Amino acid sequence: MGSKQRYLPPLNFAMVEPGVYRSGHPNAMNFGFLKKLELKSVVYLANDDLPDENKSFMAAEGIRFWHFKIEGNKEPFVELQENEIAAALAVLLDTRNHPVLLHCLRGKHRIGCLVGCLRRLQHWSLASIFDEYRRFAGTKIRIADQEFIELFSTSIQVDARFIPSWI
Amino acid sequence: MGSKQRYLPPLNFAMVEPGVYRSGHPNAMNFGFLKKLELKSVVYLANDDLPDENKSFMAAEGIRFWHFKIEGNKEPFVELQENEIAAALAVLLDTRNHPVLLHCLRGKHRIGCLVGCLRRLQHWSLASIFDEYRRFAGTKIRIADQEFIELFSTSIQVDARFIPSWI
Repeated sequence: MGSKQRYLPPLNFAMVEPGVYRSGHPNAMNFGFLKKLELKSVVYLANDDLPDENKSFMAAEGIRFWHFKIEGNKEPFVELQENEIAAALAVLLDTRNHPVLLHCLRGKHRIGCLVGCLRRLQHWSLASIFDEYRRFAGTKIRIADQEFIELFSTSIQVDARFIPSWI
Repeated sequence: MGSKQRYLPPLNFAMVEPGVYRSGHPNAMNFGFLKKLELKSVVYLANDDLPDENKSFMAAEGIRFWHFKIEGNKEPFVELQENEIAAALAVLLDTRNHPVLLHCLRGKHRIGCLVGCLRRLQHWSLASIFDEYRRFAGTKIRIADQEFIELFSTSIQVDARFIPSWI
């Protein structure tokens, strides 16, 4: 069952649905693990540019890269942008982009909001959505994130031919 | 994107790998959600028998059922049985049984040990394995569970023709 190498998934790594993964910011230690996922795309939610080593890794692996430059919710004045989350959802709701890794910096807040909005589209109960959010945010849960998920109502433009079977 | 029905995943529900899900004990409120997963099998780790409504649900859906009657680790005297965990791993490492749901009572300890041993077979670092374990166990983490995962060394009998691509 494979080599003796140790695989190091990125911080807060997990599967979301078939073809969709989530995590915090990968670094060079995680590249061996990421190769095994045979990613076709990466969606990155953060203002900062990626380090050069991440850019080189994705170029070498032929991974398509979407960068949505957004701040997370920081009460009381910084608010996550609903249209940017909707645009990121459109990427992950297209099977031509799968497998896709969604990541921000720590995999807690921005990705937590993105996945939470995905669960809204899947008609999960809010109790279940918030439980999943909390599992990754731990002691750093933000009420503003949960409000954002609850109130999210932007419609997503998807191509029906390529929509995943699980939505 | 589907009906207006609310879907309620079972407690501590998550994907483990393509074709493999984990959770706490499902109840009737979760059956609508479980139907969408089109499960072929359920692996249940607990001494208790399933309630009749769960048995009826699985029979109606044609789901194959494996019941491993084991106690979780309870320090200092009750120990999880390594051979039972190995037998459960053999079920989930056979794609003919996919999609499969692994569940115990709360999806924390017995399933946390089972998934932790799977991650050992996948050569994840122990730090990553324990982080995933903690995500589901929350404040109820058990050192004995983590010791069990670290020391697990039983070889698993698998049929190479049906082994998942992600192992």
